[in-house]
Formats: sequence, structure tokens, C-alpha cells
Amino acid sequence: MEKRKIGVGFLGLGTVGSGVLEILQMNREQVTRRAGAEIEVRKILVRDPHKKRAVNVNNDLYTSDADEVLDHPEIDVVVEVMGGVDEAKKYVKKALQNKKYVITANKDLMATSGAELMLLAGEYERNIYYEASVGGGIPLIRPLKHSLSGNRISRIIGIINGTTNYILSKMSLENMDFETALAEAQEKGFAEQDPSNDLEGKDAGYKLCILAGLAFNSRVNYEDLYVDGINGIDKRDIAYARELGFTLKLLAIGEEIDGALAPRVHPALVPSTHPLAGVLFENNALYVTGNAVGEVMFFGPGAGALPTGSSIVADLLDVAHEMRCQEEGSVMELHFQDKTIISMDKLHSAFFLRLQAKDQPGVFASLATTFGNENVSLDMIIQKSSTEGQAEIVLVTHEVEEKNFNRAVDKIRDFSYVRRINSIFRVIKT
Amino acid sequence: MEKRKIGVGFLGLGTVGSGVLEILQMNREQVTRRAGAEIEVRKILVRDPHKKRAVNVNNDLYTSDADEVLDHPEIDVVVEVMGGVDEAKKYVKKALQNKKYVITANKDLMATSGAELMLLAGEYERNIYYEASVGGGIPLIRPLKHSLSGNRISRIIGIINGTTNYILSKMSLENMDFETALAEAQEKGFAEQDPSNDLEGKDAGYKLCILAGLAFNSRVNYEDLYVDGINGIDKRDIAYARELGFTLKLLAIGEEIDGALAPRVHPALVPSTHPLAGVLFENNALYVTGNAVGEVMFFGPGAGALPTGSSIVADLLDVAHEMRCQEEGSVMELHFQDKTIISMDKLHSAFFLRLQAKDQPGVFASLATTFGNENVSLDMIIQKSSTEGQAEIVLVTHEVEEKNFNRAVDKIRDFSYVRRINSIFRVIKT
Repeated sequence: MEKRKIGVGFLGLGTVGSGVLEILQMNREQVTRRAGAEIEVRKILVRDPHKKRAVNVNNDLYTSDADEVLDHPEIDVVVEVMGGVDEAKKYVKKALQNKKYVITANKDLMATSGAELMLLAGEYERNIYYEASVGGGIPLIRPLKHSLSGNRISRIIGIINGTTNYILSKMSLENMDFETALAEAQEKGFAEQDPSNDLEGKDAGYKLCILAGLAFNSRVNYEDLYVDGINGIDKRDIAYARELGFTLKLLAIGEEIDGALAPRVHPALVPSTHPLAGVLFENNALYVTGNAVGEVMFFGPGAGALPTGSSIVADLLDVAHEMRCQEEGSVMELHFQDKTIISMDKLHSAFFLRLQAKDQPGVFASLATTFGNENVSLDMIIQKSSTEGQAEIVLVTHEVEEKNFNRAVDKIRDFSYVRRINSIFRVIKT
Repeated sequence: MEKRKIGVGFLGLGTVGSGVLEILQMNREQVTRRAGAEIEVRKILVRDPHKKRAVNVNNDLYTSDADEVLDHPEIDVVVEVMGGVDEAKKYVKKALQNKKYVITANKDLMATSGAELMLLAGEYERNIYYEASVGGGIPLIRPLKHSLSGNRISRIIGIINGTTNYILSKMSLENMDFETALAEAQEKGFAEQDPSNDLEGKDAGYKLCILAGLAFNSRVNYEDLYVDGINGIDKRDIAYARELGFTLKLLAIGEEIDGALAPRVHPALVPSTHPLAGVLFENNALYVTGNAVGEVMFFGPGAGALPTGSSIVADLLDVAHEMRCQEEGSVMELHFQDKTIISMDKLHSAFFLRLQAKDQPGVFASLATTFGNENVSLDMIIQKSSTEGQAEIVLVTHEVEEKNFNRAVDKIRDFSYVRRINSIFRVIKT
């Protein structure tokens, strides 16, 4: 058999791009065997071709002219690892129009323009691969597209932001407060100097758009999401939750209910025996419910040069397989439907609530009655020893309609014996 | 585009086969769209064609003559869900020779004859799919073949037997003793009336042969394995382990060390914060270490009609894709190498040991000295309050060569102050 070659061009060569090159070098023999072809890097777009780099690459490969990659006649696959949206999108479009396969690690690009780019890929009979855009090295896109493709998926729950999961894990396991945990995450490189995109749930939201679009065969825009982060979360809540058998996580949830979607990102309690509770520190996971498989979870490192590179190399091997098949027009995501979005107050959730009240007779009864009147039934309730005539009460409800719970809380807030409602979290019981 | 059809024949129609039919019916529209073709069941081999069945199938499809499936000109794919080795193997070989694709859920068949059948498939330019043969509904085979194909895998650790995991979970979470947990598992259908294949680690061993063969690109025979089960395990050990921060699991481990393999099945402790510790009850999981991705885990239901059916339907969709590509000879597993097997006493492990000793001065020092002389260093040690002059001592070592630990234990066993060595388990610390 003649030795086939697959030409690859890179857009960008930061952490992830360098990770891909490192894997292609360290596992060359195996990758060649599995691709059935040599993977040959032919051009790399960088800002400064003369900059000294850690990776071992022939200097002739560097260019600062994107067209040298996009118009290269012997480049079959373009690997986009430059980040950002506008420029990356322009280049990816041109690559597809030039009938090149595209692999991208770009979460923002796929969340904002994934559907458009996949339509374009279909038009030019190519495909766009994006395993690396969410969940780093964890196989998520491929299992949703292939392994679970015989299932109708009803729900996905992701822990898909490493920064917030690191902070919550530290707070939970070491009783750290939020500020200390954040500072440690920054020191260890798990949080950026400006961590707001992570803490406010935006990063998880973008990733949810990608995953929910695929899982529910629809398009999910960031504007459709309910997004709530973990900024300034109180370690007392984490301790109470543990006492009640729960662990606090920042969850990205997608759910299909009667043909409509409820995509949201918010902190929530999960039972401490739930597999998601064991996803610690910078790790990520996706928990999927399908109508045949039941519940499965994919767990692993959500970021990092080599893990994310591992996903890109897997995509490269898929491209190799696709090219060998010379099959055209296999973009599964083209068959999507637009689905209605369900507003949060129509959803059913269980809630955790912590409040400070005057320590006086009748408080429990009044709370229970108020909830009861709004059809909110209580599952657990604990009261901590009072100090200076003030008691701390923590309760967990059964699953209730969100608007009923909110109505009850609005009433409770006005009671004279209530000093303060400290915190409210949703609870995922199954 | 003309409506294509894919003809399917079944060998057997027990729990799993019925699960496949149920999924094909309930998700028909989606499966057809993703296959790009109608999946049409054309013949089903059963022992008794006249038996009344729960599934909704045209009676004409049943046959008791295997050749009506294997020689059927319009059957492209044979789904083998009959179980057993000899007859199943004969039929699968004939199916491949008749140039049909084969999907099997048969763990025993794949563990004993997988390599031979895949060679045959390559010869006839077909392929054999076996996602359902291990881990029920959890995607394991496909991620190892595709998502992680850019990695060199150094270790896999599986919880791949639901019966034993159910028993150990009950013992750990509810402080149940072995016999009670086993009886409950039998009552709930998670253990068979004769549970010895599960309890002795044989079932996990067969599955490990399949997974290790694929992960390490080699052939692993059951006879190569070290296999130790959990029969009669003592709940005291589980309690002590928890006190030390560990959880007891029956693990199926495959490891490649300097080009040689160390495949084994035995109970072992894992840190209670380890993702494998959170795999509870009848669930299964595979924890994989690759040189690019780091560590990933796949979790889900390890058995059941619909979960296992979900894996078979995913294989059917792969066949559909393969047929559309009309690609030939893509059996990746053909490129395997035979690798040396490493004997257990050359492996490095940490150990948990519980013993009863006379409560007298110098016991700790004597133990520590004996271990030290064999280069076994201790990590943790606890002594429980003595009764009637007898003390219970539990210790955990650092990672040591197995033969050194065994030599130390042989000496300790002979000391006059040692009443009894109750239990020894390996500890997986990372």
C-alpha cells in the first residue's frame, strides 16, 4: 500500500496547539498506524514567525499570513487553536470554502457560530470537529454523537468549569472560605487574574450551548440561558449541605421537557453519593440521561495542553477515517430543530434555604404553613443553636414548581421574625 | 435520495435482544435519520418459534434454523445475543465468511476468541463490533478505539462487575455483612442464585481480557490473569479502610510497564475521594490513564436490557456509517502485538493489613522493624482498644515490591505475639 499523507495547517500555536504537536511527536508511530497515513504539519499561522518557541518545529513552517494556511493546496485539515471569535470565524469559513476539514478548540466560536459553521461545512461537503471546545480531554462530543446516538437524551448535567469546581472542592473538603480558595486557585493557575467569566457562570454557559445543541438536536443561544454563578458563596451553606448529605456544585444543566428546552447554569446541591459529587478540583464531568442507556457519566481533565491536544488528535484521526472513506456530507448536526425555551419559574426543583430568625415560639409552624399554602412541601429542616436570641434555620424542600417556592419566599421575607434570608440553592436529588 | 435499507438478523432473542428491538421501535425516527437508512429486522433465530413473547414482532421473522439468518441474502448485519461460546462462535464465523457485519454482546466469546474472530473479519473485509460485551450501556470500546486513539494507554482500572460492586457498596454504606448483602443482591436480581463466577472475579476477568487487549493493542488470555475475588469479605476491613480514608472495591486492572503487561483482578482500596470510590451499587466504570489525556473515567449501568441494547444500537449505527463509506478492512485490532505478562510478585503496590496480636510492649516496634528489613515502609498505622489482652492492628504501607511485602508478612506470621493475620488488600493511591 502506498504511504498516504494528510496535510495539516495550524491557526495559532499557543498552549493547546503546542500540546497537539507534542502528542503527534511522542505518539507518532501509533497515530500514523491508526490514521493509515502520515500526519504532516505544513504551515502554522503565528503572530511573530521569528519568536523563539519551546516546540521543536522547522522554522519554515511559520507564517504570519493566514492565507498561506487557508489556500495551501496540500493542507487537508485546518486546526484552529487561535481563540477569539471574529478573526477565527473568518478563517474557519474560508477553510471550509476551500474544502478543508476544520478542527477547532474554540468554545466561544462554537457557542456563538457553531450552527452557521456546520451549515457551511455541509454546503462544502466537509465537516467541522470540536471535541476540544468543551471538556478538554474528556470525550464528550463523540460519545453524544456516536455512542449514545441510539438514545433520545432527556437531560445533561455538566460540571464544565474547572475554576469554580476547584474553589467549591477546596471550600467543601478543607472548610476554606471563598476568598482563600479563589486566591489559591489563582496561585495554582486554575483561575485567571480576572476570574469573572468563570465565577459568574459565563464560561460554563458557552459550553452548555455547545453540549445542549448537540444532545437535544437543536440550537441553544447564550441569551436563552438562565445563568447564575458562585461569586462570594458562603462556606456555612456548604457545611450545612454536607450535614444534610449534599455537595454544592456549579452545574450546567440542559433538559428537554415535552419538546421544549430548559438550559441553565447555577449552583445546586447534589446528593453526596451522586457521581457528580465526586468530581473534584479542576476535573470536569458530564452526566447524561438517555431513554435507553439510563444514566452515564464522562469524567476527566477539563483543560490543559495535553488533554485538550488529545481531543484534537482524536479529531484528526476521525478526519483521516473520513478522508479514507471519501464520504461526503455527513454532518449529523445539520438535522437540527429549533426548540422552545422553558422559563425558570415553570421548572420543578427542590430547594435548600438558609435563614436567620428570631428565636421565638411559632417560627417553625409559621414557616411550614407559609410553604404549605404555596404547595411547597418540606423534606428536611434543621435548626442550629441560637445565639443572642437568633436562630439559624436550614430547610430542604421536595420538588416544587419554582414560582410557588419563590412566592412562599417572598412572603417569608416580610415576616417580622425573619432577620435575613442568607441563601437559596436548587437541589438535584437524582 | 433513495431510501436505503439495512437488513439485520438476530441470533437469539433474550433480555438483550428484546432490549434492542424495543429501542429500535421507541427511537425509530431518530435511528433512521442517523443511520441514513431504515434498519429492518429480517430474521430472528430462536429455540422455539412458536413461543409467546413480550416483544411486538411479526411471527414470520422467527426461525429455529440458524442458516436462515446466516445465509439470508438481504441480511447485512448479524446481531449475536444468544450467549455461550461454541455455537455462537460457529455462527459468527459463518456470518463473517458470508460477508456480513457482526455485532455481539457476548463477553465469553470475545474474551476467548476475539482475536481469532477479528482476524477472520479482516480476511473477509468485514468488522466485528462488541461495545455491548463489556460495561453494558457505558461507552468503553468506542472511546478506547476512537476518542483516546491519540494516546498511549498505560493503565486501565475497571469496576466491571455489578454484583460484587453492589455487595461492597451495601457493606460500606450500610455496614451490612457479606452474607446479608449477597442475599439482598440475589433478591433484587443483581446476583445469580449461583454467584460464584461473579464473586470469584471470573466475570470481571473475562471483561478485562477484552478491555486490556484493546487498550494495550495486544492479546490477553484469561489464563494470563491473576484473579482474586471477594468471597466472604469481612465488614471490619471495610470499616477500618473507611477510617483511613479508603473504600474497598473489586478492581480489574490492566497496566503496561516497559512493554510488558500486568493484568489482574483483585479487591483493593482506593482513596475515598477517588472517582472510582463513588461508583456505587450495580454501576460500572472504567478509569483510563493515557499519556496525553491524563486520567478519564467512563461511568454508567454495567448491565440491563435497554442499556446493553443502547450499545448494540450504537454499533448498528457504526455499521450503517461503515456501509455508507463502503470502506473495507478497517479492523483496527488487527495490528496487535503479543506482549509479555508480568508476574504479580514483581509489581509495586501499597498494602492494607489487619492482624490480631497479643497486647504487649514491643509489638509495634517489632512489626516496623520486620517491614523495614524488607524495604517495606509504613504509611499509616492504627491500633484499636484491646480486649482480653488482644489488640487489633491495621496498617497501610507505601508502594513496595510485592515480593518484599510478602516476605515480611511471612516472617510476621511466625511471630509468637501474632494471633492471626485477618486480611490483606492492595491499595491504589492514585
